[in-house]
Amino acid sequence: MDLDQYFEEIVAKVNATMDSFLHGDTRELYEASRYLISAGGKRLRPLVVVLSSDLLGGERHRAILAGAAVEVLHNFTLIHDDIMDQDTTRRGIPTVHVKWGIPTAILAGDLLHAKAFQILTESIKGLSGDVAYKVLDCFSRSVIVVSEGQAMDMEFEKRWDIREKDYLEMIRRKTAQLFACSAYLGGVLAGGSEEEVNNLYEFGEKMGIAFQIVDDILGITADEKELGKPLYSDIREAKKTLLVIKSLERANSEERKIIMEGLGSNDMSKLKATASLITGLSLDYAYELARKYHEEALAHLSRVTPRNENAVKGLRSIADIVIKRRK
Amino acid sequence: MDLDQYFEEIVAKVNATMDSFLHGDTRELYEASRYLISAGGKRLRPLVVVLSSDLLGGERHRAILAGAAVEVLHNFTLIHDDIMDQDTTRRGIPTVHVKWGIPTAILAGDLLHAKAFQILTESIKGLSGDVAYKVLDCFSRSVIVVSEGQAMDMEFEKRWDIREKDYLEMIRRKTAQLFACSAYLGGVLAGGSEEEVNNLYEFGEKMGIAFQIVDDILGITADEKELGKPLYSDIREAKKTLLVIKSLERANSEERKIIMEGLGSNDMSKLKATASLITGLSLDYAYELARKYHEEALAHLSRVTPRNENAVKGLRSIADIVIKRRK
Repeated sequence: MDLDQYFEEIVAKVNATMDSFLHGDTRELYEASRYLISAGGKRLRPLVVVLSSDLLGGERHRAILAGAAVEVLHNFTLIHDDIMDQDTTRRGIPTVHVKWGIPTAILAGDLLHAKAFQILTESIKGLSGDVAYKVLDCFSRSVIVVSEGQAMDMEFEKRWDIREKDYLEMIRRKTAQLFACSAYLGGVLAGGSEEEVNNLYEFGEKMGIAFQIVDDILGITADEKELGKPLYSDIREAKKTLLVIKSLERANSEERKIIMEGLGSNDMSKLKATASLITGLSLDYAYELARKYHEEALAHLSRVTPRNENAVKGLRSIADIVIKRRK
Repeated sequence: MDLDQYFEEIVAKVNATMDSFLHGDTRELYEASRYLISAGGKRLRPLVVVLSSDLLGGERHRAILAGAAVEVLHNFTLIHDDIMDQDTTRRGIPTVHVKWGIPTAILAGDLLHAKAFQILTESIKGLSGDVAYKVLDCFSRSVIVVSEGQAMDMEFEKRWDIREKDYLEMIRRKTAQLFACSAYLGGVLAGGSEEEVNNLYEFGEKMGIAFQIVDDILGITADEKELGKPLYSDIREAKKTLLVIKSLERANSEERKIIMEGLGSNDMSKLKATASLITGLSLDYAYELARKYHEEALAHLSRVTPRNENAVKGLRSIADIVIKRRK
């Protein structure tokens, strides 16, 4: 089977599942909740859930439900993060709070958060209490860790003493945790052994770290239209990305001055100068580190004996997309 | 056993359980998350969970966990509601977003929301998949219904055509659902029959409706210091409480003009005039309706055969507190 077709079938089912849960009589609230989900997105996390389940020969309908739950959860975090970060565009359209106001955006996020748990609960219907516990424990723990990661990310904006290891811990929580949980959930629902689901967890985590490093790179190097959100917003918000940390480490005193003036600035020429300087000083290093995590992810994946060759090819391909994507 | 001592023991255990889950290395976030919980509150919902479990002879440690989950969830909704409603005081102290800013308040609410699911998941550890499903399904569904209720409440602020049945449906979602779920959870965790847990659900729901009617009454008649939040904020926000709906129905044209001018106003003399008018026109009716729901709640409770006499006395006493409280 052709991988594109394999992925498309899964994405169509995940989309239909999400849609089936996102209707209710409080119409504006549901409209605001569906809006960002309908605007697209790569659906990488649900693909990781379903392919990890396929890898171990799991029941497809459970993995689709868990995949939908993870994607709904991810979209909740995006809606709330955009309020906190005051971002006005995502996926090429105005953010939810810009379109409906902050109160409705907060509530739409809360609704998606709860819906994610409702959809996940459907995935464990009829399974043992032990599997139910593992699934719910991993999922709730992930939201907690993601919230902690967002808190670190916001706190780092105000600090200059952030090191590479702090950054890696922050993105492990903010981004990699949900990838790790996605792979783990697919494995647990499929009845995988402890060793198998732990390797899937590690696979997801390493891939998630690579994903975020690349995300930070694209935030200053991508084509703005293709990216769907404003370039340089990380610099404007003084985010301490790997690129910034490495650049400050490698910069001479003149360069450091330019970078520190650009971070947190609203002046487009300063933002551009900083972006260009940062790219020159750290792009190679950042890509190298992303590739290292990509390789570690694949090493963990190779430790799981696949029941399905397409699934292992698919998971490898997702790991490649994470590294090679342009948006 | 003396009821006060019975309640105090439960509340102490619920408080200790909540506290044990609310610590982490992102210190400001956890501090903001604990702040409102530490400021007090009546803990009525966890008492309903634990007493409903006691009523059917359930395992105490599971009920304490589920009670803590419900209280944590309730506090998450308060933090986010206060941002949406722009309320600045609760439990006699500044609201979370006033103290830490909107981004941290959003995130603290999100963290509590996820923590509630984590704590609830601990309550089902070792139980069957069937019970796990019922517990998680009721809880996630409740957050969804509560969010819908909050959306209705906000939408009603802009409308003048709200009838009593719309108001009752709104408070059934916004407030009564979580009381219903609390009683149901206690019953399900204790292994109650379908009839028993359904009667507990109805008991909680009717009590929750009575609770909110009384809450709306206290919002304009209570002692402000005792209440811990500003009087008349419902009138300032043009909330369509039962009192407002009934008053508009009973008012003559002159009175209606005063009420409609007061709703949404920031002028304290107008707010006071409206409050006094509303009280005169509808207080008797609102208390009568609250008492009707209180009686219905007790009727459902009486259909459950108690395994524990203290628990049934305690639940009746909570229903009485709901009606008779002054804050």
